[in-house]
Amino acid sequence: MSITHGFHATMTALPGRGDDVVKILLDAPSLPHEDCVVFLVGRSAADPDVIHVTEGWASPEAHAGFFASEEAQAFVARLAPLLAGESQYTDEVPVGGKAVL
Amino acid sequence: MSITHGFHATMTALPGRGDDVVKILLDAPSLPHEDCVVFLVGRSAADPDVIHVTEGWASPEAHAGFFASEEAQAFVARLAPLLAGESQYTDEVPVGGKAVL
Repeated sequence: MSITHGFHATMTALPGRGDDVVKILLDAPSLPHEDCVVFLVGRSAADPDVIHVTEGWASPEAHAGFFASEEAQAFVARLAPLLAGESQYTDEVPVGGKAVL
Repeated sequence: MSITHGFHATMTALPGRGDDVVKILLDAPSLPHEDCVVFLVGRSAADPDVIHVTEGWASPEAHAGFFASEEAQAFVARLAPLLAGESQYTDEVPVGGKAVL
């Protein structure tokens, strides 16, 4: 499936809460969504409270529609209290490669 | 397969050479390597000459061994002349998620 919308987000967990943040991310409702093509969670080796997500969606509309859904808002509500400050977003749209996850 | 080594690299192609850089990356000898678990190529929507790669390897040794190989050095030799300046690396190790590539 082609990807026309994506980003790279970096977030910092509250001290010591990186494991909890990763657990929530790996259970994100984006994962089973058919228009979510890439949802790659990464983590800093040096600071396990620094966590990255690269997302790729079939379209901006698909992502916006998902993000407005009740399940997405519930996900954000679970995640936000464990984060220190705002996530930082980079303009990065996945185009291909390999991921054996 | 578990990932114990990884990084996020951002590179800038020479003006207008982004397509060539992406083509070379998507033909990287890392892709068929069994110890290369993640090799995700991304691209800026705003500037198609800004290109990202997230890599995840089974071990630092596996990556170092691959990088020292003749095919990896030939790949670097194809890529480097198309890049403006040095790539910027971020400490990011893939831990899971989804990628339908």
